[in-house]
Amino acid sequence: MKPKCLLALLAVTCASSLCMAQTASIAEDFKPSTFNQPGQEYPQVNSQGYARFRIKAPQSDSIKVSLGLGGRGGTKLTKGADGFWTGTTEGPMDEGFHYYHLTIDGGVFNDPGTLNFYGSTRWESGIEIPAHDQDFYALKDVPHGNVQQILFPSKSTNTQRRAFVYTPPGYEKDKSKKYPVLYLQHGWGEDETAWSNQGHANLIMDNLIATGKIQPFIIVMTYGMTNDVKPGPGAFKSFKIDHFQTVLTDELIPYVDASFRTRADRAHRAMGGLSMGGMETHMITLNKPELFAYYALLSGGTYSPDELKDKTKPKLIFISCGSKERPDGVKNAVVALKGAGYDAVSYISENTAHEFLTWRRSLYELAPLLFKE
Amino acid sequence: MKPKCLLALLAVTCASSLCMAQTASIAEDFKPSTFNQPGQEYPQVNSQGYARFRIKAPQSDSIKVSLGLGGRGGTKLTKGADGFWTGTTEGPMDEGFHYYHLTIDGGVFNDPGTLNFYGSTRWESGIEIPAHDQDFYALKDVPHGNVQQILFPSKSTNTQRRAFVYTPPGYEKDKSKKYPVLYLQHGWGEDETAWSNQGHANLIMDNLIATGKIQPFIIVMTYGMTNDVKPGPGAFKSFKIDHFQTVLTDELIPYVDASFRTRADRAHRAMGGLSMGGMETHMITLNKPELFAYYALLSGGTYSPDELKDKTKPKLIFISCGSKERPDGVKNAVVALKGAGYDAVSYISENTAHEFLTWRRSLYELAPLLFKE
Repeated sequence: MKPKCLLALLAVTCASSLCMAQTASIAEDFKPSTFNQPGQEYPQVNSQGYARFRIKAPQSDSIKVSLGLGGRGGTKLTKGADGFWTGTTEGPMDEGFHYYHLTIDGGVFNDPGTLNFYGSTRWESGIEIPAHDQDFYALKDVPHGNVQQILFPSKSTNTQRRAFVYTPPGYEKDKSKKYPVLYLQHGWGEDETAWSNQGHANLIMDNLIATGKIQPFIIVMTYGMTNDVKPGPGAFKSFKIDHFQTVLTDELIPYVDASFRTRADRAHRAMGGLSMGGMETHMITLNKPELFAYYALLSGGTYSPDELKDKTKPKLIFISCGSKERPDGVKNAVVALKGAGYDAVSYISENTAHEFLTWRRSLYELAPLLFKE
Repeated sequence: MKPKCLLALLAVTCASSLCMAQTASIAEDFKPSTFNQPGQEYPQVNSQGYARFRIKAPQSDSIKVSLGLGGRGGTKLTKGADGFWTGTTEGPMDEGFHYYHLTIDGGVFNDPGTLNFYGSTRWESGIEIPAHDQDFYALKDVPHGNVQQILFPSKSTNTQRRAFVYTPPGYEKDKSKKYPVLYLQHGWGEDETAWSNQGHANLIMDNLIATGKIQPFIIVMTYGMTNDVKPGPGAFKSFKIDHFQTVLTDELIPYVDASFRTRADRAHRAMGGLSMGGMETHMITLNKPELFAYYALLSGGTYSPDELKDKTKPKLIFISCGSKERPDGVKNAVVALKGAGYDAVSYISENTAHEFLTWRRSLYELAPLLFKE
């Protein structure tokens, strides 16, 4: 037996026993994902984080789910005699929210069982793997703030643009109170719906406010893809912030300050964003430090002391990412910022990657640090 | 040749010439539907109202689009050498909004080209056939009201329930002004997103307010399927209004009156709904005439003078439907109501059926009649 064959045999043996071990250990306590459409039983998730799919397409030849373990090409479904295709991820998924889609006979479609969420520049299926700490973004019987769709005029793009505005509970009642504002951006391929739909930003805020852990503030979320960044290698090399910066700082901020009871000064204005939204935050806060006192990059790069010197000093810099991203880069950047005299905080979300549970947790950690008097 | 064969031959001949005539007359000026997802070229609509579909699924065996001429089973797509399936409706569609879905190899999926809209108790694909009068619901450079998501506590259902609230432009600015409220319900299988998403209720209001044709008012839209009405024959026979009535009148209305600057009396409160929402409006206004002064049924039945007698008299009854529904029933009901001394108005939407253009137009006609001093 040549070494090559031996290795192949070993591989088969290992794979086979792994597979048996996994099959034996999958807990059969699957329940519908919380993001399913009303009345839909599938997809399901078990207590270990495995996801199971079930799709009706009796005459189809192949169905694959894009979700699965990283880099292994997703989960192939198997057709049963009843015309339903079923399959289970080969391992547990990370806790939290995941985008996915189906490939049916070579075409890309969404799972009819789930709600759709805007990601990858399209409305995609979404699934929620319950997180051990999901209580902080749960819908509870506490006073709720509202999420408002606003349409604001934008001369620079010659459009009426959409944003969503979270106003905290009680906003309508005390008509003399004014609030600080966090401008919070989505990532590449997402839009202004992301932070409310898959991010649960409103519920995170409601719950924090109910426990008295933060001072209420307004959150404004708008579309940041005005630069029309295309997917693929080098997508961001030619990225210019000018268009979006104009929309945000010359059009949206004045509109919000005129339409809502804001504290319309630098000390009560923050900007943050996830991924590409962090990159935008980085660029805009450095270009317009006179507008924002708090900066937050969520899986969206870092600041160096060099970039900040000779500019109006921020009151706080918050930098975060998931432990499966580049936590050392985040931690080292914050050490350097502190060494240079900046008030900087790092946060690492345990056992999460470049996904929304990282960002939900980041918002939860960030909110109590903002707008301290 | 037996008669049966002759008929068959005639049928083939007729179908064939019809088909040729149609093909010759289809204007090749197709454009992406306004409800397509960002950057998606298909589905498309031409100036005559034909819809054209294009779906990638190279290994699929059959794809059918549920849209087509009424009762003819939709539009079958044909596979091209490039792996894309294409097809055009066999005739022009009615103007306005249509739900649809794809049947791919026996399974039901959405068209990845379009946005999804909640109808038939699921998120379905939607397409917009431009209407000759579409200006009244267009997004224009006028002051815009906001659409807010609220979450209100419901003891009767032990949930935090969602509603959307349209507040007119200027609501935030004049903090002393109070507004009348229209409670506006969706139809069976839809939800509280319908009137804003596919109904454009907010844009209809913005445009009416900008031209000074109406006094601004608030619209509240919540989920009316608390009775869990299932599809199929006899679905509504066992319909009981109690659950939804309790949510609306004992929970939502007090919450709205406490949270927004409303004129919280009967004279400044209206209820309306489309289809099943009309049925709910009919039941609730008759049960609680002390709460509402204006009633509106949009493709949702009629009132008779007998039902209304000995009850607090409404200020206005508005009844509408599409010309392809039962316009005589609507007109006759209004004649009878007027004869009995009620202020009643009928409206028939020309060349539309039980679909959203009927209801957009109905709201446009209704709004100027509400809350006249």
